[in-house]
Amino acid sequence: MTCDWKCEKERIEQMVRRALWESGCEGVVVGLSGGVDSAVAVTLCAGAVGKEQVKGLMLPSAVSREEDLRDAETLCRSLGIPFQVIPIQPVLDSFHALPGITDSPYLSGNLMARIRMAILYYFANREHRLVCGTSNRSEYMLGYCTKFGDNAADIQPILHLYKREVYEFARSLGVPEPILTKTPSAGLWVGQSDEGEIGLTYAEIDASLEALEKNGWNATTSVEERVLALVKKSQHKRSPAVNLRGYP
Amino acid sequence: MTCDWKCEKERIEQMVRRALWESGCEGVVVGLSGGVDSAVAVTLCAGAVGKEQVKGLMLPSAVSREEDLRDAETLCRSLGIPFQVIPIQPVLDSFHALPGITDSPYLSGNLMARIRMAILYYFANREHRLVCGTSNRSEYMLGYCTKFGDNAADIQPILHLYKREVYEFARSLGVPEPILTKTPSAGLWVGQSDEGEIGLTYAEIDASLEALEKNGWNATTSVEERVLALVKKSQHKRSPAVNLRGYP
Repeated sequence: MTCDWKCEKERIEQMVRRALWESGCEGVVVGLSGGVDSAVAVTLCAGAVGKEQVKGLMLPSAVSREEDLRDAETLCRSLGIPFQVIPIQPVLDSFHALPGITDSPYLSGNLMARIRMAILYYFANREHRLVCGTSNRSEYMLGYCTKFGDNAADIQPILHLYKREVYEFARSLGVPEPILTKTPSAGLWVGQSDEGEIGLTYAEIDASLEALEKNGWNATTSVEERVLALVKKSQHKRSPAVNLRGYP
Repeated sequence: MTCDWKCEKERIEQMVRRALWESGCEGVVVGLSGGVDSAVAVTLCAGAVGKEQVKGLMLPSAVSREEDLRDAETLCRSLGIPFQVIPIQPVLDSFHALPGITDSPYLSGNLMARIRMAILYYFANREHRLVCGTSNRSEYMLGYCTKFGDNAADIQPILHLYKREVYEFARSLGVPEPILTKTPSAGLWVGQSDEGEIGLTYAEIDASLEALEKNGWNATTSVEERVLALVKKSQHKRSPAVNLRGYP
């Protein structure tokens, strides 16, 4: 681990410990997709509060990839944390059976993300745990997430890191190789890939976001313009509900 | 309507119109419980953007009171807005059938609130609407709500009003009498009443919150101390997730 990532690990772990202590909760629960973001988040939680205090939940649907579940299990075993697998398809089916609800990949994707949130909070409530989110800065700023779904959490240990940094961090933390080399996917339908759906590579996204933040959100290239449009369109996902009380 | 409430109505309707215009959405969806908060919220939305643009959703569970559904229907008819009734019990049952999930009134209550949120957002996504929340200032400050459940919305038209003010406002807006006289209840289990569960009356809560806000959150009575403790304990429900990026 380079010194930078070692310092970063300590900085994040300190934040997680402090949040847990301030909350009065007794542990953390993390949803594990088999992807790199949740792998880094859960590894940091285990380092911060001890493996016994961290619970991993795998919440696969009918369109989830088998290798993702396997990789998440391998990760839990190597960290030594307790985990549980809860297939969410029956709940998704029950939503689709409601009057007026019809199926579409996009709408089902949002439902899945919110079902997972509800299950994570069920366990968090019952076992006095905090829900650890797994959002990174790139997807958060682009709004590539479901509002009150996968972006809903009590703590967000990697929210300040671009996707590129999450990969670097993952390598230095010793995250298992298969998790590092697979194509990033939100896993909301078969064959979905983040970069395919967004229409930009993470290299383009991260470079644009960094340039935009440095230049006061003035786009100077066509890729930056596209990224800026996504940032603006998703502003509501990062803001409190519109109200007359003032924030919060 | 007194001048105060007439001005307040215009101020809120302007906010709702502006939020809708800025979002590029084409309407609003509101969950209607049959209680006073959602009655005031939906009445304001109809005034703001026109009755055709507002959709009411009634989402009863097995423990919902029949009169609540009837009152919500009467309200929709008197406002002239389209509405739909979707019983959520099958979805709640499907959650309870998952491995490791057991029943308890408190945990089921949170699940119900999150199921309702997911359905409201399903319709919002599909029909390009904003989700209108129905939280009032009293319950919001006390944390008497489910995080990412009933407090999750895009716009919150009555978030700045204490429960007492919501009742006054409701009278001046002509909300039907049965809604004004029933006992306030979150409706999460049979016989639940807000005041019974919290252990304080809304008169006590509102007076305490007002005094606390004026006195820089210093409690001077034992009731204020109890209210302040609830405000502090629920701070996380009003805050973004803990993170190292800075807010938002």
